[in-house]
Amino acid sequence: MAKLRVGILGSTGTVGQRFCQLLEDHPQFEISALAASDRSVGKPYSEACPWKLKTPMPKNVRDIEVVPITPPLDCDFVFSSLPSGVAREAEESFARAGYPVISNSSCFRMEEDVPLIIPEINPEHIGLIDVQRHKRGFDRGFIVTNPNCAVMSFAPPLAALDRAFGVKEAIVTTLQAVSGAGYPGVASLDIIDNILPYIAGEEPKAETEAQKILGSFSEGSIEKAEFTVSAHCFRVNVVDGHTASVRVNLNSTSTLEGVIDAMREFPSAGLHSSPERFIEVCEEPSRPQPRLDRNNGRGMTITVGRIFPDNVFDYGFVALSHNTVRGAAGAAVLNAELLIDRGVI
Amino acid sequence: MAKLRVGILGSTGTVGQRFCQLLEDHPQFEISALAASDRSVGKPYSEACPWKLKTPMPKNVRDIEVVPITPPLDCDFVFSSLPSGVAREAEESFARAGYPVISNSSCFRMEEDVPLIIPEINPEHIGLIDVQRHKRGFDRGFIVTNPNCAVMSFAPPLAALDRAFGVKEAIVTTLQAVSGAGYPGVASLDIIDNILPYIAGEEPKAETEAQKILGSFSEGSIEKAEFTVSAHCFRVNVVDGHTASVRVNLNSTSTLEGVIDAMREFPSAGLHSSPERFIEVCEEPSRPQPRLDRNNGRGMTITVGRIFPDNVFDYGFVALSHNTVRGAAGAAVLNAELLIDRGVI
Amino acid sequence: MAKLRVGILGSTGTVGQRFCQLLEDHPQFEISALAASDRSVGKPYSEACPWKLKTPMPKNVRDIEVVPITPPLDCDFVFSSLPSGVAREAEESFARAGYPVISNSSCFRMEEDVPLIIPEINPEHIGLIDVQRHKRGFDRGFIVTNPNCAVMSFAPPLAALDRAFGVKEAIVTTLQAVSGAGYPGVASLDIIDNILPYIAGEEPKAETEAQKILGSFSEGSIEKAEFTVSAHCFRVNVVDGHTASVRVNLNSTSTLEGVIDAMREFPSAGLHSSPERFIEVCEEPSRPQPRLDRNNGRGMTITVGRIFPDNVFDYGFVALSHNTVRGAAGAAVLNAELLIDRGVI
Amino acid sequence: MAKLRVGILGSTGTVGQRFCQLLEDHPQFEISALAASDRSVGKPYSEACPWKLKTPMPKNVRDIEVVPITPPLDCDFVFSSLPSGVAREAEESFARAGYPVISNSSCFRMEEDVPLIIPEINPEHIGLIDVQRHKRGFDRGFIVTNPNCAVMSFAPPLAALDRAFGVKEAIVTTLQAVSGAGYPGVASLDIIDNILPYIAGEEPKAETEAQKILGSFSEGSIEKAEFTVSAHCFRVNVVDGHTASVRVNLNSTSTLEGVIDAMREFPSAGLHSSPERFIEVCEEPSRPQPRLDRNNGRGMTITVGRIFPDNVFDYGFVALSHNTVRGAAGAAVLNAELLIDRGVI
Repeated sequence: MAKLRVGILGSTGTVGQRFCQLLEDHPQFEISALAASDRSVGKPYSEACPWKLKTPMPKNVRDIEVVPITPPLDCDFVFSSLPSGVAREAEESFARAGYPVISNSSCFRMEEDVPLIIPEINPEHIGLIDVQRHKRGFDRGFIVTNPNCAVMSFAPPLAALDRAFGVKEAIVTTLQAVSGAGYPGVASLDIIDNILPYIAGEEPKAETEAQKILGSFSEGSIEKAEFTVSAHCFRVNVVDGHTASVRVNLNSTSTLEGVIDAMREFPSAGLHSSPERFIEVCEEPSRPQPRLDRNNGRGMTITVGRIFPDNVFDYGFVALSHNTVRGAAGAAVLNAELLIDRGVI
Repeated sequence: MAKLRVGILGSTGTVGQRFCQLLEDHPQFEISALAASDRSVGKPYSEACPWKLKTPMPKNVRDIEVVPITPPLDCDFVFSSLPSGVAREAEESFARAGYPVISNSSCFRMEEDVPLIIPEINPEHIGLIDVQRHKRGFDRGFIVTNPNCAVMSFAPPLAALDRAFGVKEAIVTTLQAVSGAGYPGVASLDIIDNILPYIAGEEPKAETEAQKILGSFSEGSIEKAEFTVSAHCFRVNVVDGHTASVRVNLNSTSTLEGVIDAMREFPSAGLHSSPERFIEVCEEPSRPQPRLDRNNGRGMTITVGRIFPDNVFDYGFVALSHNTVRGAAGAAVLNAELLIDRGVI
Repeated sequence: MAKLRVGILGSTGTVGQRFCQLLEDHPQFEISALAASDRSVGKPYSEACPWKLKTPMPKNVRDIEVVPITPPLDCDFVFSSLPSGVAREAEESFARAGYPVISNSSCFRMEEDVPLIIPEINPEHIGLIDVQRHKRGFDRGFIVTNPNCAVMSFAPPLAALDRAFGVKEAIVTTLQAVSGAGYPGVASLDIIDNILPYIAGEEPKAETEAQKILGSFSEGSIEKAEFTVSAHCFRVNVVDGHTASVRVNLNSTSTLEGVIDAMREFPSAGLHSSPERFIEVCEEPSRPQPRLDRNNGRGMTITVGRIFPDNVFDYGFVALSHNTVRGAAGAAVLNAELLIDRGVI
Repeated sequence: MAKLRVGILGSTGTVGQRFCQLLEDHPQFEISALAASDRSVGKPYSEACPWKLKTPMPKNVRDIEVVPITPPLDCDFVFSSLPSGVAREAEESFARAGYPVISNSSCFRMEEDVPLIIPEINPEHIGLIDVQRHKRGFDRGFIVTNPNCAVMSFAPPLAALDRAFGVKEAIVTTLQAVSGAGYPGVASLDIIDNILPYIAGEEPKAETEAQKILGSFSEGSIEKAEFTVSAHCFRVNVVDGHTASVRVNLNSTSTLEGVIDAMREFPSAGLHSSPERFIEVCEEPSRPQPRLDRNNGRGMTITVGRIFPDNVFDYGFVALSHNTVRGAAGAAVLNAELLIDRGVI
């Protein structure tokens, strides 16, 4: 079976690099076009891109000439990891030109007609695509998004609890890795022997996206879940891996065992890039740790630990997600696999 | 006026070193005895102590010969920064032998007859000393304690809010510096490119000490404050400075301005080591930061920022305290100054 | 073909863990015995070992019960990563009991009758085994060693230059990762926002081992190479990967191209764990970097960069080696593969 | 006595901030003008400057309105910490307009008629000022420079050895702090769990400036010292403090005691900002360390340790200097104090 040909918008950034890494040996996709900003256009990718990943740049992308971020692009669909400033216009123009756009950018996530998807949780939200096409006058193209990288650490365990017991409210503090800010991103002078108590624009995303993801889709629209989330977002001295400290109130009573089982047994999506377990629960009190656990399930597993009854809310736990894999490029790849599985691409 | 002569129990550890540093030019105290474990006994302090502070070891302690942790000790009172394992027996024996013991150890903090004091908040709790002497049969000696270093970051702003509006409950996540674990303490392999989601024994202290500190003293006993605290304690890649992310529910309504004013105007204790401001409120969203703010007020100020109405609770904020100064040695020194001011020593 | 059954002495340390990781799917070896100090004996490995590697503990070792470090051991030969204090007696007793001992410890490296081997450089030194057996009265057993982890970063490029042009002298400064000190090893308080200018016992090893490795074996003994090495060894804030800054004087003239080619074309040993290239030369001025290059060749490649004519000596370059793979466990595994290839095991 | 009024060119950068900090309570200078690039002009300094130092921004500069980097400026002389790109034109225009320019920039350092001064070593080089005025047609103005921050770590001990024994050649490897790259400077992704083996443009400065500083001034020109230096410059995960690993060959024989004494007894310049000791020699093998020793002598002392006979050269040692104090702003302030002392300003 022929592979689908993929274009990457914003291909030289940290998330763009992850796309190249994750798609190196992908059975369904092959990279055919790499788009980036003007200063990269015309150069071979190996020259345009300040590669920062630990595995070497895949051979199949080294010689691809970087092209501008405008349609047409030589591909069947596009992944986008464009910065917010340019994403809105570029992604809409690609969708309008007939390309499915699987976006990691934040600009369309909360629009009423744009699906915000985690395949294990709300695959049925892809039904919004028809609404979107109709509303925006798209023909074959559309836009599908994945959540913010911080949300990806705590939305999965909240989803497990919401299904099993109903979530009433959650208070979250995130400890986020520097790779989430891209490159050059966080200055070393700001993070050595230090933490930063604020990430611009992050907390509103963390407080709203989960309700949409856990909302119900019916009659062409999504009704958001009713719980509320409070988020404090910190930057810490970690390369990859966002950790969330979570306290949650539930709508119905539950045992500790019930809480653990709800997470552990949350089913995988069964797609190519799906990890064996969507949520892994560890029992040692000192886990999860970013350096030791971020690569669980090749970076696609959410690792949860320290699940206990809480002094103020019903339960507390700590959740970890690899922010540039499961929280960004890997999330988009999984969404693309879902769309193929459902016949949308 | 002659200075009081001070002994330090556990003088070679990270907190013991801070005592030496803070007392170098103190107008009321001079160090006359340094006690430590057997392997240090008999050596000059300069040889026994693996000095880790940025300022050089004070000249006045270099040649003092380290003695065992048993009374009698050549001093008027003692500061103790003994590890939990040995603190209980040693501190009690010093109190019994007639020495005031100003302790940074955790073992007696929650005992009913032992004051747990932050001079700005609950100086009247020193009234417990009489109860303690009577109950334990101490003559001139007694034990006074200061709080856990994590508690010191968030108890002061909670105290400000409790006085002004009443605190109902608080959910806290702490990001704690490695110096809190002493030396050698946290292994570098555990903290480079990493965080640790668990600090053994820390959360129970963080969840109980504030209620005692904010409790009311009457008729010879303390009635604890009624709010509840939930604490998640993390270790992060920071040398000094514990940061707390706090969400709080209040008993009465308040404006944001009222909350800020309550903190900012909380009065100083007016003692020698008191900072100009007990609580400093910063307005830039990216503050407080440990590396930039831990030394505010020579390490004795609590710095608070990001005060906002919260999505789930009434308010959220971030608080920072220098863990080995205000959260340990400096807290004990301030307690000693209080006891002198009140005529107890 | 049946796999050889392997015992690991010092199996719970950082290098012991690497042995378990590297041998997980090895075609020639399977782990049959794990030995460690008394406090681990009797426990399953999964419980006795504080696993610190990023990949999970291999399933095939989790349930093995840890046994004492004394023969007999249920295996065909042993790898040893014992600390210096106990290595000498234990390794000799295993060799005497008939076991081939492939050791990463330093105690026997410089003994006249013990081969110190890098398979790509001096495989012929295994001829010393007969001398050793005769001298020490060993029957089937023997001891073979691999170099110190710092030496492993610069000895390979020096070997390439020595073969091609003759090395006269070298001045080396190493920047070594904290994993080289084992666990808990370097205290975080000593390395955050800091470097350490001294590693106890390291510089003498770095200054003497290369001459033995590059020495010639004839008539039953090794004549050491004649060049001299000066080494300054620093500890830096890096998890894995030792970097060496090297300046070298040669015995004969050479061009820059000649120097680069000598390194690049140094042949691989062609063994199972051999990397495709023994020495990889990178051309970007900002490489090699530990985080980006330590895993080249699955941690078995030496990466060299910044090769230039020097202002004082003939040439300068920077060399990097993964200290717990190529510089420790991987080196020993490669030595075992060499010994099998040559029919010695 | 009235203080001289000082202007700072490049006042908002990391070195500009150090100038403000060091001049806060200076008895001879007061800041009267702060100049910076266009995007800061017109704002109060407190708003224009991303202050990154641990002590708070001095009150006396907070409200000064930032002005453009063009004469005239309301001051008696200027300190310059301009980036290389703009320094040449701006500094020359200030000198031509009659201002003494004390520059930390690199552009004029190696020009024949510009003094490159360390007051303890070559104060007589200020004689070049007359030559410079004559050659460039300056009237009252002139340009005086201080060395590169890496050079400042090893040039002082080399100067001590050169005076006592003659230096023939030196091989240096520097481990430099991130603050040397300014702000934002080094990206956190490049330095967490990593080192960088290259700093653009640094090695040529490190290899040439010491010869000029140690050169002799006679008949209106400087004859450079004859020794050669080889430098490898690394960036490491340290906030402040450049460390140099040095091996040196001398022209005459010396004892280890002689070498140590030559450093320890190198006289101070006796100026206001001079440290008690120019070079401090520590004896513990694990010192100097950046975090513990960079603030020796309020950041103005060079700390040297690990002085030993070397295996290849005559001696080796490790030297440390605070790169933004003694290696930048503090060096310029000391030069200004020298010029006043000698009646040149």
